[in-house]
Amino acid sequence: MGKRVAVVLAGCGVFDGSEIHEASAVLVHLSRGGAQVKIFAPNIEQMHVVDHFKGNPTEERRNVLVESARLARGDIQDLAEFAVDQFDAVIFPGGFGVAKNLCSWAVDGNKCTVNEQVKATLQAFNQAKKPIGLCCISPVLAAKVFPGCEVTVGKDNNEDGRFPDAETASAIQELGCKHICKDVNECHVDASNKIVTTCAFMCKAPLHEIFDGIGVMVANVLELA
Amino acid sequence: MGKRVAVVLAGCGVFDGSEIHEASAVLVHLSRGGAQVKIFAPNIEQMHVVDHFKGNPTEERRNVLVESARLARGDIQDLAEFAVDQFDAVIFPGGFGVAKNLCSWAVDGNKCTVNEQVKATLQAFNQAKKPIGLCCISPVLAAKVFPGCEVTVGKDNNEDGRFPDAETASAIQELGCKHICKDVNECHVDASNKIVTTCAFMCKAPLHEIFDGIGVMVANVLELA
Repeated sequence: MGKRVAVVLAGCGVFDGSEIHEASAVLVHLSRGGAQVKIFAPNIEQMHVVDHFKGNPTEERRNVLVESARLARGDIQDLAEFAVDQFDAVIFPGGFGVAKNLCSWAVDGNKCTVNEQVKATLQAFNQAKKPIGLCCISPVLAAKVFPGCEVTVGKDNNEDGRFPDAETASAIQELGCKHICKDVNECHVDASNKIVTTCAFMCKAPLHEIFDGIGVMVANVLELA
Repeated sequence: MGKRVAVVLAGCGVFDGSEIHEASAVLVHLSRGGAQVKIFAPNIEQMHVVDHFKGNPTEERRNVLVESARLARGDIQDLAEFAVDQFDAVIFPGGFGVAKNLCSWAVDGNKCTVNEQVKATLQAFNQAKKPIGLCCISPVLAAKVFPGCEVTVGKDNNEDGRFPDAETASAIQELGCKHICKDVNECHVDASNKIVTTCAFMCKAPLHEIFDGIGVMVANVLELA
């Protein structure tokens, strides 16, 4: 039997939801790894809706669960119905939706609050010693919930434009966590906490390199599960 | 220099737009193939908006270009600005948005009309003898615009549930086209028309098999370009 993996989404679209290509890559690699996947999202309103063509917030209102269902092709459940004993691992793709809908990092930085269901989900996996996979900006969830843990969001310097959000690494260190510099094709494994992270779109890299880096993260999660 | 490939989207979400995982797979494989990609969508209203959690149409209104921009991470252009001489190939991912927004197949079957910009785009590539890649339901665009062409949408019988929409093959044949039966990991190349098709989510297959089948289609498109 394949490993049972929960994937938690935050909407559908990089600027106000889950980053689409990261979420799809996670699901492709889980499929190839023979995992049994169930997809979840919180049944809450999005912080806001961004017009991805113009780049501006709009007056629209959308629900995180309903929009995440686009990525799940309708096969999704309310995160409120989540039970840790039914899974061997959990993975959170990235995207601004993580920093806007699953926690308030986009507004409050490392003074953010984390959605209670998301926090409870992360704590449940950690207490059960089951692995947690995170990519892009999602590692800030672990940094906030598990002080002292080790994560990567890429590099801690810009490297001529490859890591434009490199200051995220400093903000994570200020929380008492250890930021490990890794490139887009690598992941970091915090073995004692079973937290596996990769930078994905935090690095300005070709899409297939981001896809492959997420594959490394997923393989390590399945290995630990 | 890599091949210059246009990707034409139809929204963002399987039930009213482009199928997200197909679109992402096309972009990952094009990236790996070293292609220079530009993404386009028509600046028109969606036929309707489907709540992907409940599966029902809603009263909302959304624009195909604006929603497609979610898949393009904002880097997208109006299909009205498209110029065939700037590209070596064009690819249309699938999803109900193709059959609802790019043509009226979802409502009218093989008596459908095709959006004028989409039709002009397809005709321009065909006249320039440049390849056209299509997956899932998108081959019906070629079947409608190029009578007599050869395409696949998978198998022409259900195969115990693997091809639940197998009657699409008959509808394509009624248009005077030749339907070629292919499995999810294969594509069909109509060499004289330079049309490359693969069934993708027309087959109920694991996501990584759909991903790989799209890779075969993309590789053949780049080879012909």
